[in-house]
Amino acid sequence: MATAGKVIKCKAAVAWEPNKPLVIEEIEVAPPEANEIRIKIVATALCHTDLYHLLESMQPQGFPTVLGHEGAGIVESVGPGVSEYQQGDKVIPLFISQCRQCHFCKSPRSNQCDLLAYSKAGIARHDAMAPPTSRFTCKGKELLQFVGTSTFSEYTVVNEMAVAKIDPMAPLDKVCLLGCGICTGYGAAVNTAKVEPGSTCAVFGLGAVGMAAVMGCKAAGAKRIIGIDINPEKFEKAKVFGATDFVNPKDHDKPISQVLIEMTKWGVDFSLECVGNVSVMRSALESCVQGYGVSVIVGWTDLRDIAIRPNQLISGRTWKGSTFGGFKGRDAVPQMVKVYMDKKLMLDEFITHHMTLDQINDAIELMKQICARCEDCKKHLQ
Amino acid sequence: MATAGKVIKCKAAVAWEPNKPLVIEEIEVAPPEANEIRIKIVATALCHTDLYHLLESMQPQGFPTVLGHEGAGIVESVGPGVSEYQQGDKVIPLFISQCRQCHFCKSPRSNQCDLLAYSKAGIARHDAMAPPTSRFTCKGKELLQFVGTSTFSEYTVVNEMAVAKIDPMAPLDKVCLLGCGICTGYGAAVNTAKVEPGSTCAVFGLGAVGMAAVMGCKAAGAKRIIGIDINPEKFEKAKVFGATDFVNPKDHDKPISQVLIEMTKWGVDFSLECVGNVSVMRSALESCVQGYGVSVIVGWTDLRDIAIRPNQLISGRTWKGSTFGGFKGRDAVPQMVKVYMDKKLMLDEFITHHMTLDQINDAIELMKQICARCEDCKKHLQ
Repeated sequence: MATAGKVIKCKAAVAWEPNKPLVIEEIEVAPPEANEIRIKIVATALCHTDLYHLLESMQPQGFPTVLGHEGAGIVESVGPGVSEYQQGDKVIPLFISQCRQCHFCKSPRSNQCDLLAYSKAGIARHDAMAPPTSRFTCKGKELLQFVGTSTFSEYTVVNEMAVAKIDPMAPLDKVCLLGCGICTGYGAAVNTAKVEPGSTCAVFGLGAVGMAAVMGCKAAGAKRIIGIDINPEKFEKAKVFGATDFVNPKDHDKPISQVLIEMTKWGVDFSLECVGNVSVMRSALESCVQGYGVSVIVGWTDLRDIAIRPNQLISGRTWKGSTFGGFKGRDAVPQMVKVYMDKKLMLDEFITHHMTLDQINDAIELMKQICARCEDCKKHLQ
Repeated sequence: MATAGKVIKCKAAVAWEPNKPLVIEEIEVAPPEANEIRIKIVATALCHTDLYHLLESMQPQGFPTVLGHEGAGIVESVGPGVSEYQQGDKVIPLFISQCRQCHFCKSPRSNQCDLLAYSKAGIARHDAMAPPTSRFTCKGKELLQFVGTSTFSEYTVVNEMAVAKIDPMAPLDKVCLLGCGICTGYGAAVNTAKVEPGSTCAVFGLGAVGMAAVMGCKAAGAKRIIGIDINPEKFEKAKVFGATDFVNPKDHDKPISQVLIEMTKWGVDFSLECVGNVSVMRSALESCVQGYGVSVIVGWTDLRDIAIRPNQLISGRTWKGSTFGGFKGRDAVPQMVKVYMDKKLMLDEFITHHMTLDQINDAIELMKQICARCEDCKKHLQ
């Protein structure tokens, strides 16, 4: 614990301004204050929501910042008042806190911790760009902690209510994926849609979140899982997770909802939008069976409205959404790690590349090339 | 049964074209064909959806027609194959059929009978304007049967799958209200929102549907029921049905969702839109608590899209809708009549005027004057 109580100098990928490459910098990470935990980040993944902040929403007040919210690491030191965590614990930082005290944490129906917006370590709302507190500085400037986590740094500081303690045997380079995408997609199917055995599901967008949603549909007992993506190279991998049918919208002249209704007679029982595109959100709802179809918005975007004709709902469909798959992170992430360790959840299969922090801009370029919403991104960026 | 098997000549209010007063005409009502029932209409109410067809949607292919879908009557004669109903039965015609055979009728989750669109007696989809068959003619022209029922006529013909047989002791001038509005509002609270005991609800629009929604919320055990209307004269009546708080949006400079969030700390648990206005639908959703709030669209309109920011759903709200309160009419309407006869449901309190068929245009004018969405109507009609 030679570093405890001291400022740590380490490498981080700094987003100085919107729509520019990240810059690997030496930053200073302050010691944890009351109820805070300083974590050595061992592994992190890149999520499209990092790119959303950098390339789509681009709110100037959200910069400079350190992105990254899908990481895993080891507790380096803890601040005063922390009793549940200690140096050496393996942990996953959470972009949604679980204070266990507020109205929402006490409700079994919600994971929207009321302290989300103002935790001391800068746990910001998912779309908030200016958390009130950060432990990062670089070249004399404070760096914001993106959604409180900032895993594109060798060290970060997070309030204990936004940290999940996990199995000491867990491989951090795998379970880091449980910090966002896999829980988000899997939970959207299992917790939010509440997919039923024997049902027919459609998953729009076969990125990591969509693949995890497919896996969730399968775990819930869906009989038919239709994967939809404009990149047919995703279909083979989607089979691994449980997809049974595939649709490439580019192969059809008609609306994708019509294609799905023809494939299923009345429409699907459950649809999950895992792209983050308002047009796809509409299609996903319209693809559901009238009377009782449920569509869940999983992909993140909040720049434009979604729209629908009232009768799509009046005729009995349900439109829902969730963040982090509805999971209360401190409780659920350790359980999800256990399910993985018990070989009942795939994680390794999601990993496409191993890269170093220095290669972060290459990783961003790769994601821009393969992600299902890149065309929408580009349109928006024009 | 002197009239059985013969064409009946009777009075009906004919809508010859959109946006014109109805005309009381002598029409011919053909005898019921196979599986059809001819009904002597004893009482009917006026619903805003009749006005929607006449004054808002105004699709030319939906005319000439006989409006009216909230009626009650007595079976005059039955066609071949009808065994469940006989001459003299008290009945309520249904604008949603219940064939009991289709996928949706067999599902406990939906009342969207699959035969809705093509029943022989012209059971049309709620928004369909040109049912395939009608038993009405006038001056040598066929008159369409609006949503299959056409209760603004002394006689009508309906397929048996769209008829509810009710208690012979039921007062038809009261229970006719169960043919649409009261079931629609009450069921939206009880069946669709599934309002929970102790919850806080907001009902937008205090017309008959909204008042019935208030009554449904109370029956479900809601602790606080906030009635919202731009006409404060509705508030006293809403108290009778169970409303505990009242908001007139005209008394506030801020969005109504903000007013409700301030009144309730986090927003309401359940909101019900009983106006049929896309802006109000948005407000109703935005008034719900994040994490688990449920908003139900009850008011009918389908001319324009509803819109919402994705995060309103992603943060855990649910947007639903229902037709006829989710009730399967042949089974549920007789039960609702029984609940009324047992004095556990108010109906008499909804009645504001008694008028004759000849006064139908006066009734329409009255509704235009008092309905919560008249301003929107007028704007649309400009």
